[in-house]
Amino acid sequence: MKKYFLLTPGPTPVPPEVAQAESRPILHHRTQEFGKIFVDVIEGMKYVFQTKNDVLMLTGSGTAAMEASVVNLLSYGDEVIVASCGNFGDRWEKICQAYSIKVNKISVDWGKAINPKDVEDLLKQNKNIKAVFTTHTETSTGIVNDIETIGKIVKDTQAVLVVDSISGSVNQKFLVDDWYIDVAVTGSQKGLMCPPGLSFVSVSQKAWQLVEKSTSPKFYLDFKKMKKSIENKETPFTPAVSLVVAVHKAIEIIKGKTLEKIWQETEKLAFATRTAVKSIGLKIFCDELHISNIVTPISMPENIDGQKVVKTLREEFGISIAGGQDKLKGKIVRIAHMGYIDKFDLIVGISGLEIVLNKFGYKVELGKAVKAFEEIINS
Amino acid sequence: MKKYFLLTPGPTPVPPEVAQAESRPILHHRTQEFGKIFVDVIEGMKYVFQTKNDVLMLTGSGTAAMEASVVNLLSYGDEVIVASCGNFGDRWEKICQAYSIKVNKISVDWGKAINPKDVEDLLKQNKNIKAVFTTHTETSTGIVNDIETIGKIVKDTQAVLVVDSISGSVNQKFLVDDWYIDVAVTGSQKGLMCPPGLSFVSVSQKAWQLVEKSTSPKFYLDFKKMKKSIENKETPFTPAVSLVVAVHKAIEIIKGKTLEKIWQETEKLAFATRTAVKSIGLKIFCDELHISNIVTPISMPENIDGQKVVKTLREEFGISIAGGQDKLKGKIVRIAHMGYIDKFDLIVGISGLEIVLNKFGYKVELGKAVKAFEEIINS
Repeated sequence: MKKYFLLTPGPTPVPPEVAQAESRPILHHRTQEFGKIFVDVIEGMKYVFQTKNDVLMLTGSGTAAMEASVVNLLSYGDEVIVASCGNFGDRWEKICQAYSIKVNKISVDWGKAINPKDVEDLLKQNKNIKAVFTTHTETSTGIVNDIETIGKIVKDTQAVLVVDSISGSVNQKFLVDDWYIDVAVTGSQKGLMCPPGLSFVSVSQKAWQLVEKSTSPKFYLDFKKMKKSIENKETPFTPAVSLVVAVHKAIEIIKGKTLEKIWQETEKLAFATRTAVKSIGLKIFCDELHISNIVTPISMPENIDGQKVVKTLREEFGISIAGGQDKLKGKIVRIAHMGYIDKFDLIVGISGLEIVLNKFGYKVELGKAVKAFEEIINS
Repeated sequence: MKKYFLLTPGPTPVPPEVAQAESRPILHHRTQEFGKIFVDVIEGMKYVFQTKNDVLMLTGSGTAAMEASVVNLLSYGDEVIVASCGNFGDRWEKICQAYSIKVNKISVDWGKAINPKDVEDLLKQNKNIKAVFTTHTETSTGIVNDIETIGKIVKDTQAVLVVDSISGSVNQKFLVDDWYIDVAVTGSQKGLMCPPGLSFVSVSQKAWQLVEKSTSPKFYLDFKKMKKSIENKETPFTPAVSLVVAVHKAIEIIKGKTLEKIWQETEKLAFATRTAVKSIGLKIFCDELHISNIVTPISMPENIDGQKVVKTLREEFGISIAGGQDKLKGKIVRIAHMGYIDKFDLIVGISGLEIVLNKFGYKVELGKAVKAFEEIINS
């Protein structure tokens, strides 16, 4: 018997009332009862996205919703900008390439934020750009990008702005309408506090115009089919009904608390976590001027393998934090503060980290980081 | 407070122990703990499919797995056969068309089975056929096709055989290896007794050769990515972990009971249901020589609207059965016997049907169909 603590940036822990909702007896997806829940979820996601645009739901991971954005907006040979600052930004490029979309890429060093000016310059140079793809919170590095400024730049061009906020939605301020985001993408397993398996997109009028022209092949991911079905309070194909019921419950909780309150709380948890790890001499991996509130990326001291830290925390203490991805493998570890992860979960994570770092020869005064964390929370 | 009875051919009811497994605390998908469960599920699905071929898992509805079969096996302009006897067979054609695959279609009247000879003739006439797509149990009409004979025909050609057994797997005999099925497709929400949201495909060596040559665009649905990830006991993208845990539990139950036993029991339930509805003068919609065991399609007496029967059963009694799809809308109703639906669930459905038919002016002796059902079950 082992106790588990999930502190990863997705999937995140599920509140007991959401887990209970998930396991209620199955409703058929073409009934009034389910239709009502489904429509509530769609309306609730408009609150989460802060939008009046259409919201569509897919049964699939966040990547499915990213791919859906590409295949519904674009056609073979179209040109786009991908502005990437990490692993998930790069995914936009890979998806576009799979569909023979020409990518003009803006890459910044991992750990830095995208400079909106770079997007502006590229859009001025190339009038053929149909879409700008970027990432709200880049979970692989800890960065939050300045979507608000990018939105102001893109709105006055022919291009649409498509933003992956899979990890950012709910916990990090994200205003689809105010920021002129044409297509926003999120998943169920992060700030939404649900199991993975559902994803959501919002689609603006400007984006629908592109959808009308798109000739990329698609069937399961077809936005127009989804929009048409919503009119009948249905989905085109059997949805993951138990997850829809879970999201329904989670949105009720989120609305009860309000997004503003959640943003504030998450910001405090993020600040406390950074302060805690810095108090024991650890360095924050990314540019702190552009650090997100949803995950703290921690550089590992020299000679300490982050993969081993993650593994030991998990195997010895049942604590799941994330390691580095791709080129950051072994170099950083990441502690999430999103969804149902609360302050005492973070105390557990920080405590475990102190113990494991000591074990690997990085001597820290036990309890020091926990103390620093508590001091912020108590303030 | 209303009691619900789910007698639809998917989603089907979830056993309490499976629902409980589904709602256990979330595991991170890149951990040993989850890897073990995932590998068990893949191995378990080999039992369900009765195959030694590779089995892949997708987070998505059955339709996503159907589309995955098309985009992984074929390329723009390829020629295929779609042998369809209903709504779900027709879906193969729609998916192929979305990807500019040329479809040679074999259509039979709804309610009839596909004649394997037609497949044989078409394959002889056209040596360019790369794949034959068909349906094991066609849920829209109640038919089970003779996949065994079709398999023998296709195996000696250049083409691969791709079979949708989304509704048939588990409850209707389906032997992937013995019947030479190159790609089999199923979903979590039918015989597997789980909520919808996961789907599975088996892929033969002959099919992998086509996969190597396929140039259709794909990213989320890419078989090669899935196969590579399985080597590390992982999925390429975040899977619906709670549903994987549910399927894990369901497979344990299925293995404990054995497929042979389940096939026998389902056959008896199907026979009892047909006998019951015939005892009150109702007609079976499809060709009874080729009727499946997973759903009983019942023709509505003249002047009785099947849609209203379905609606009334649901709204007054909380009993969900299915209506007719597409051209059969209003003309038939369908009662499923698959997954966790057992004899007493069917008693409830048949009892409700007797009452509602009476209400709509089709006078039946109350209890007569129930009696006929009980007599078979008791025999």
